[in-house]
Amino acid sequence: MSRRTDIQHSLPKVAANGLIDRRVLLRNSALLAGAAGAGLTGIARAAAEPLAVDPWSLNIGAAVPTYSTPSHYEAKVVRTLANPTNPGNNQARTPHHLLDGMITPNGVHFVVARTGAPDIDPAKHRLLIHGLVRQPLVFSLEDLMRYPMESHIRFVECGGNSAPLWSKEPIQADVQALHGLLSCSEWTGVRLSTLLDEAGVDPRAKWIVAEGADAATMNRSIPLAKGMDDAMLVFYQNGERIMPINGYPLRLFVPGYEGNMNVKWLRRLKLVDAPIMAINESRQYTLLLESGKAWRFYYPMEVKSFITRPSPTMQLKGPGFYEISGLAWSGHGRIDKVEVSADGGKSWGMAAMQNPVLPKALTRFRMAWQWDGRPVVLQSRATDEGGNVQPTRQKLIAERGAPRNTPPVTGFPMGHVNAISSWGIDAKGAVSHVYV
Amino acid sequence: MSRRTDIQHSLPKVAANGLIDRRVLLRNSALLAGAAGAGLTGIARAAAEPLAVDPWSLNIGAAVPTYSTPSHYEAKVVRTLANPTNPGNNQARTPHHLLDGMITPNGVHFVVARTGAPDIDPAKHRLLIHGLVRQPLVFSLEDLMRYPMESHIRFVECGGNSAPLWSKEPIQADVQALHGLLSCSEWTGVRLSTLLDEAGVDPRAKWIVAEGADAATMNRSIPLAKGMDDAMLVFYQNGERIMPINGYPLRLFVPGYEGNMNVKWLRRLKLVDAPIMAINESRQYTLLLESGKAWRFYYPMEVKSFITRPSPTMQLKGPGFYEISGLAWSGHGRIDKVEVSADGGKSWGMAAMQNPVLPKALTRFRMAWQWDGRPVVLQSRATDEGGNVQPTRQKLIAERGAPRNTPPVTGFPMGHVNAISSWGIDAKGAVSHVYV
Repeated sequence: MSRRTDIQHSLPKVAANGLIDRRVLLRNSALLAGAAGAGLTGIARAAAEPLAVDPWSLNIGAAVPTYSTPSHYEAKVVRTLANPTNPGNNQARTPHHLLDGMITPNGVHFVVARTGAPDIDPAKHRLLIHGLVRQPLVFSLEDLMRYPMESHIRFVECGGNSAPLWSKEPIQADVQALHGLLSCSEWTGVRLSTLLDEAGVDPRAKWIVAEGADAATMNRSIPLAKGMDDAMLVFYQNGERIMPINGYPLRLFVPGYEGNMNVKWLRRLKLVDAPIMAINESRQYTLLLESGKAWRFYYPMEVKSFITRPSPTMQLKGPGFYEISGLAWSGHGRIDKVEVSADGGKSWGMAAMQNPVLPKALTRFRMAWQWDGRPVVLQSRATDEGGNVQPTRQKLIAERGAPRNTPPVTGFPMGHVNAISSWGIDAKGAVSHVYV
Repeated sequence: MSRRTDIQHSLPKVAANGLIDRRVLLRNSALLAGAAGAGLTGIARAAAEPLAVDPWSLNIGAAVPTYSTPSHYEAKVVRTLANPTNPGNNQARTPHHLLDGMITPNGVHFVVARTGAPDIDPAKHRLLIHGLVRQPLVFSLEDLMRYPMESHIRFVECGGNSAPLWSKEPIQADVQALHGLLSCSEWTGVRLSTLLDEAGVDPRAKWIVAEGADAATMNRSIPLAKGMDDAMLVFYQNGERIMPINGYPLRLFVPGYEGNMNVKWLRRLKLVDAPIMAINESRQYTLLLESGKAWRFYYPMEVKSFITRPSPTMQLKGPGFYEISGLAWSGHGRIDKVEVSADGGKSWGMAAMQNPVLPKALTRFRMAWQWDGRPVVLQSRATDEGGNVQPTRQKLIAERGAPRNTPPVTGFPMGHVNAISSWGIDAKGAVSHVYV
C-alpha cells in the first residue's frame, strides 16, 4: 500500500461512499504535508520545466471598458430562454451549474415575464398608494428615494421552480433547466410600512393589491401583514439600479414569498378588504388537486436545496477527490443545516455552510468527497431554523397525488416542488437525474 | 405652530444640526401615523386623480436578453477612466455616489491596469508554484477548481485610493473621483494554504512572489504568513467568473491588503527567502517622506469611511428630510461603529450599520437627517474592531508632513489616505468638498 493510499484510508469519513471531513483539506495538516508530490487529492501535477510565456502576455491587452461583461470564453454562462422568439410569456433561467457563491450576478438573474421589459422613464414613473387609506399619496422616484433605506441579501424563487421534478420519469437536463427559476441578490430600498404609515392605513384594510406597469398589468393581492412586516420597495440590485427585465425602476419585494408576488415595474398599491382574485392567484399559481379542491394563497417558498456540482450533464474525470457544492434556502428564515448523502439517502454527512448564513437568502454548502469509481447517488437535504426538513419526492407524492404528466386543467402542473434532488453517477463518471 | 412642525420638534435628536434617530422612521410610529397627509418628512404628495396610463404600458416590451445590462436611463452609472485612449496605464473608478448597498456590481468594479486585459484562454492557462518548496507543482484551471472552495464578501482598495484628499486645496469632484478605487464583491476560490501544503513549504521560505500574465508582468512580494492565513486563489466574483479586466481566469486575493497585491491573471507563485524588490514595492506603492526616508511594505488598508449621499456635486432640494448614507471598511477586520457629524466634527451621532457587518468588507451605514436649510459640514468617522479610529486630515498631516502638490520624486504623492472626508452644504443646498 503506497503512502498516498495510506493517507486516503486514514481520512475521517462522515458518511458512506467517500464523504469526508473537509476540514482536513483546509488546514496545515500533517496528512497534507506528508502527501506532497502526489498530493492528497491526486490532482496536483509535478512541474518539470519553467512555464512558457503565453501569447496573451506578449502584447498590450484590451482597454478598460466603462462597464464590464464576462470573457468571451464564458459565453455559455447565460440565461436560457424558454420562448426566445416571443418577448411575451418568457422564462429565463439562471445557470447555477456554472456559478459559485451565494450572489447571483445581475446579468443572469432569472426572469418570468409575460410581456417583456417596459422601457420606463424613471423621471416620469409614479407610484400611487390609495384605497383604504386616510390620504392617497403619489410618489415620484425622486420622492421615494429620499426615505430611509435598507439593504438585504435575499433570494427570489418562482412558485413554479423545480416543476420538472414532478415528471413521471426523471427529465435529463442540467440544474439550470431543473432549478433555474431562482436567484439571490442584495436588494436596497424603502420599507413599505414607512410609506403605509404615511398614507395612514384604514382599520378595514386587510390586503394590498400590487400592480405593475408592464403591458400585462401584472397584479397580486398581498396580505397587509406582510406589507407591514419585511416588505420593501426596491431600487437597487447588487448595488446598481435594478435591471430592466427585473423591474426597473421600482419593484415590490416580499422576502421569502413566491416570485410573482414581488411585482416588477410597480406603479400602484391599493389597500382593500379582500383579495381581488387576480388571474395570478385564481388561475396561475394555484394547484388543482385530484380531489377537485385547489390550493390557493400559499406564499412562502419551502425549505429546499440541490447540488450544483457535480450535477446532471457533467462528467467526472475518474476516481479521486471532488468537492460537492450546492445551494440551500427557505422562505421561512435561515438554513439550520444541510446534509449530503452519497448512497441515495441511507447515510448522511453534515455539509459546511458558507458564512454569513442569512434569513431568506441562498446559502452555499460544501462537502468533501473521495470517489472510488463505483456508481453512487448524491443528494442534499436542507433543514431551516423553523425545523422544516426538505421532503423526499415520495413524501410529496403521498401528500399531493401522483404526477399525471398530462396538460393541467388549470394553472401549472405542480408548484412549490421542494423535493430532494437525486444525481446518479455511473461507473464512467456520467452524472444524470434519477429518482430513488 | 402646525402639527407637522410640532412633530419635527419632538423628533429624538442624536447630534447637532438635525441628526435624528432613524428608528422613528422605520416602525409603526404614532408620530408617523399622526403625520399622515403632510407626512413626517414633508416628501409625500397627496394624490388627486388616478394615475394616467404611461405609454410604456401600452405595448409588449423588450425581449429577455440572455445577459442583462442596466437601463439606458442609467448610462451615467459607469466607470470613469483616467486615461481612456491608452489601454496601458489606466485607472477606472467605481461610481459610489450612484450605487447603494455593500456589493459592487461586476460591471463597475474599479480597475488599475498597466497593460489592459490579456485575453487568456482558460484551457491553456497554467499556474506554477515553485522556489523553496519540496515539489514544484503546475496546475491547470480545471485542476485548481477541484480543490475545496470558500466564498467571502471582501473589499479591494487601491493603495492610492483617496489620494485627491492630499491636495493643498479641496478638489471639487464627486466621490467616484475622490474615493472610487474601491469595490466589494463576493469572491470564491481555493485557500492558497491548501496548495502550499501540497507543494510542501521549505522552512527557509518567508515570502511569495506573485506574478501575473499581463504584458506588464505585474508582480509583488507577499509575506508567506499571509499566504498561509486567509489568502485565496479566486475564480468567481459575485457568483460568475471574474471579469477579464479584474483578473480572469485566476486572481490572487489577499483580504484587506492594498489592491495591487491581489495579483490579477495569476500565473506564478515563487517561494523565496526575501522580497524581490519589484517595481511595485520599491518605486510604486512606497512613500518618500520629506526626511528622505521612505515607507515600504505596509499592507493593510486602514479604517476609513465616506458619505456617498449627499456628496459633492449633488444638490439638495431645500430643507427637509434626507438620509445620509455611506460606506465604511477596514483592512484590519470588522467595522465596530460609524459616527456621523453635521457640524464639522464637533458633535457626533451613531449611524445605523446594515447587517451583515463582515470583516474586510464594505459596511453600509445610514443616518436620518432633518436639514433646516442652514450651511452645515457633514462627516463620517469609522472605528474598527481593533479600536483603530479614522483620523482627521490634520492628524495625518501631522504624521506625514504637509501636502506639497508638486510632482513626487518617486511613487505617487500620497498613499493610504484614510482621513475623514468633509462635505460642505451651503444655504442653497449645493454640496462641495471642504477642509475643516
